[in-house]
Amino acid sequence: MNFSFAPIGVIHSPYKEKFGIPRQPSLAPSARMKLELLPPYNHADTVRGLAAFSHLWIQFVFHETASRGWRPLVRPPRLGGNDKVGVFASRATHRPNPLGLSLVELIGIDIGSGVILELAGADLLDGTPVLDIKPYIPFIESRPDARAGFVDGPPPRLSIVWSEQARTDLAIWDSRHPQLAVLVEEVLAQDPRPAYQNDPERIYGVRLYLLNVRFRIHDNIATVLEISAS
Amino acid sequence: MNFSFAPIGVIHSPYKEKFGIPRQPSLAPSARMKLELLPPYNHADTVRGLAAFSHLWIQFVFHETASRGWRPLVRPPRLGGNDKVGVFASRATHRPNPLGLSLVELIGIDIGSGVILELAGADLLDGTPVLDIKPYIPFIESRPDARAGFVDGPPPRLSIVWSEQARTDLAIWDSRHPQLAVLVEEVLAQDPRPAYQNDPERIYGVRLYLLNVRFRIHDNIATVLEISAS
Repeated sequence: MNFSFAPIGVIHSPYKEKFGIPRQPSLAPSARMKLELLPPYNHADTVRGLAAFSHLWIQFVFHETASRGWRPLVRPPRLGGNDKVGVFASRATHRPNPLGLSLVELIGIDIGSGVILELAGADLLDGTPVLDIKPYIPFIESRPDARAGFVDGPPPRLSIVWSEQARTDLAIWDSRHPQLAVLVEEVLAQDPRPAYQNDPERIYGVRLYLLNVRFRIHDNIATVLEISAS
Repeated sequence: MNFSFAPIGVIHSPYKEKFGIPRQPSLAPSARMKLELLPPYNHADTVRGLAAFSHLWIQFVFHETASRGWRPLVRPPRLGGNDKVGVFASRATHRPNPLGLSLVELIGIDIGSGVILELAGADLLDGTPVLDIKPYIPFIESRPDARAGFVDGPPPRLSIVWSEQARTDLAIWDSRHPQLAVLVEEVLAQDPRPAYQNDPERIYGVRLYLLNVRFRIHDNIATVLEISAS
């Protein structure tokens, strides 16, 4: 017995690859993205009254990794990459059904031509197919006292240092992307490295918009080295 | 571009029909249900570490109403059945993709033969196909200050009166279902009637387990009339 779903919308996001995407939504609140509704759902009626809600659930498909299958046990980054937990005790992308669930902030609704929702704090890859949108109901879904095992608070944040070169590059690009500096800092502060990597000399690159942001991490400090067109 | 999903589990619930199911999970916290994982997911590994979480997300299919399609506008019960809002501004079951999302409490995990999760506070129909289980992450997903338009608090609750007959019936059935009285009260207190119905003479029946619970509602008081095998 299978169930088949067609996307009701698609995400337009600065995140062009999985590497660098915060492991939870809202860890990078400056990341703005757009959710474009697809026909026949792109009519103002389908979102009537939605602006009364500050937060939404996005149910989506992990489309880039959907074909890679799943394993019963996964290694959550929060456990340092050493301990394994069951896939259903994790929010890992490789799941039996590659369904994602993200709580996002609704910034605005544009019904000028079709329907476009402007979202903040989302952790979604560019091109992500969206299956459903639901309003967030705080009196039901806000449970501050819930126990959450190994994810009982935000992860530690790295400090950020900008090199001379990166500052120069930023001055070029931030006219097109005004929130770029904050977004870069939020993305790097949550330490995007795989849990088992700790090589202070290694240079990483994360793609944001159409830019490649190069950085290095040493002693809980991320140094932004360079920003270039990717 | 369609996506196809197979259930990873199935719900065993006292709710045998849509009528009477609380419109939000946790309005009837006494409703216990079981989530039975299906092969090949019914291995203890897939839920390793899950017991550290008190609350879970269940992503499921509204299987009974899935074939009925959707409309751009719906009439939420909370608006008295008069005002319409967009389907994406509601948690209505008739959606473009009939995907449900419920926050439930994890009471226990039985790995004696296969995997069975014992859940409380769920609002799921018996036989519901489950597509995914995810742990609830309060530091991300608890947003007590979120604005929630027309659903900014629990609905008003009805008072409950038990008739002589219903008390006699209850004494027969509550040995098999020890939480029956509390469950009946929780289900009726949230006023299961369609929003536009207000006939004090009308007798309703709600099916719980294999029982038919008959009741009448007048002046914000629900009177339990009778409990019989259905």
